[in-house]
Amino acid sequence: MITLTAFRLVPPFAQGQVRDLRVRWALEAAGFPYAERLVGAEDLQTDGYRALQPFGQVPAIEADDGLRLFESGAIVLHIAEGCPALMPADANGRARAAAWMFAALNTLEPPITEFARLDFFHAGEAWAAARRPGALAAAQKRLAELADWLGDRDHLEDRFTAADLLMTTVLRILRRSGIVNEWPAFEAHQERREARPAFRKALADHLRPFATQPEEELANERGDPSGGEPATPPP
Amino acid sequence: MITLTAFRLVPPFAQGQVRDLRVRWALEAAGFPYAERLVGAEDLQTDGYRALQPFGQVPAIEADDGLRLFESGAIVLHIAEGCPALMPADANGRARAAAWMFAALNTLEPPITEFARLDFFHAGEAWAAARRPGALAAAQKRLAELADWLGDRDHLEDRFTAADLLMTTVLRILRRSGIVNEWPAFEAHQERREARPAFRKALADHLRPFATQPEEELANERGDPSGGEPATPPP
Repeated sequence: MITLTAFRLVPPFAQGQVRDLRVRWALEAAGFPYAERLVGAEDLQTDGYRALQPFGQVPAIEADDGLRLFESGAIVLHIAEGCPALMPADANGRARAAAWMFAALNTLEPPITEFARLDFFHAGEAWAAARRPGALAAAQKRLAELADWLGDRDHLEDRFTAADLLMTTVLRILRRSGIVNEWPAFEAHQERREARPAFRKALADHLRPFATQPEEELANERGDPSGGEPATPPP
Repeated sequence: MITLTAFRLVPPFAQGQVRDLRVRWALEAAGFPYAERLVGAEDLQTDGYRALQPFGQVPAIEADDGLRLFESGAIVLHIAEGCPALMPADANGRARAAAWMFAALNTLEPPITEFARLDFFHAGEAWAAARRPGALAAAQKRLAELADWLGDRDHLEDRFTAADLLMTTVLRILRRSGIVNEWPAFEAHQERREARPAFRKALADHLRPFATQPEEELANERGDPSGGEPATPPP
């Protein structure tokens, strides 16, 4: 049995975006049952939590066999390695899936996140307005290269893998910006993947705790009093 | 036999920083012989190259068994999986190493790269000066959390793994900024790792092609005429 750490409170902009969604999706696709451990911002600073997640983020998992694991990419990879629905059986196919997992998180996500943060966390700041065209161009460049690769393919490789799962969650960051909609192929991909039963179950479970959030607690969560980067990615 | 793709020409700021260094280090540590395929900026735009590396970056590898692989993190993981010197034998130890590999490339590298790019690619621009304190704080926050985790440890976990290798190359990005020097523990870590014979051999082989670069070609490589992000990380 796996216990997954996720947020108890999330402001509306981050609902459907926090990285526990990736892990829930992988667990559903693999058919692995799991328990939730919901935490708040106050828990992330404790020594106990930092022993589990050194950067004070979610998600993390704890397993009955003693494994404690952090980083959504590594958790999804670990789950996928035990699940034929998320990873090919042959060594080269597994290596190719891992390549696209790293591409999603190291080549696509950084420019996408830098761009998305300008609008959400720095709207109205003069530097952000000046940076916006360059950040947009950097994100668009990677999206265009991804679209060129995909062409008419249904998946990043010849079948659905954990890499398609991660890439879908990365492209979700741009959904509200309208950038994804500029490539109809992306939007069709996103819709097809988000229609999968495992995604829908994962999203519903991710959102469930937030339905009962008091308004005043949401207001407190909105800013980041430490001045650091938020633990949750922007929409 | 593996063939590794690397740059034929690199401007001085990027020498010792391009990501083929990571792969060369892993190959040396594993004792795997390899051949080089040196490419220039003009090669990266071709359909043939994009079939190997969809984002027009280096490194990529081609193996005799037909495997073609991109993303430095995925290539290093693939090499490490066949090498006891880079990866523990037990499943949980391997998962922990993968967690730190993703942490290096998805939690540390993005804020470090965003900060480093301000000084190198946008020096003198007003928005970059305004953004600099926030970007520095974001990078420092992650470095402080990493330092807290490391404490007196020699490695990220209980032995050297491919994750220490990747983290070392990420922290090298900050070397010239002086930020790493603010934590003596980091500097000691870096020096110990960079004294390893496999690193020294990898660095020498990475630098060798650049010794004969003509000055005028360096000048051409300095800017990025496409307006996109450079394929090489900043110093």
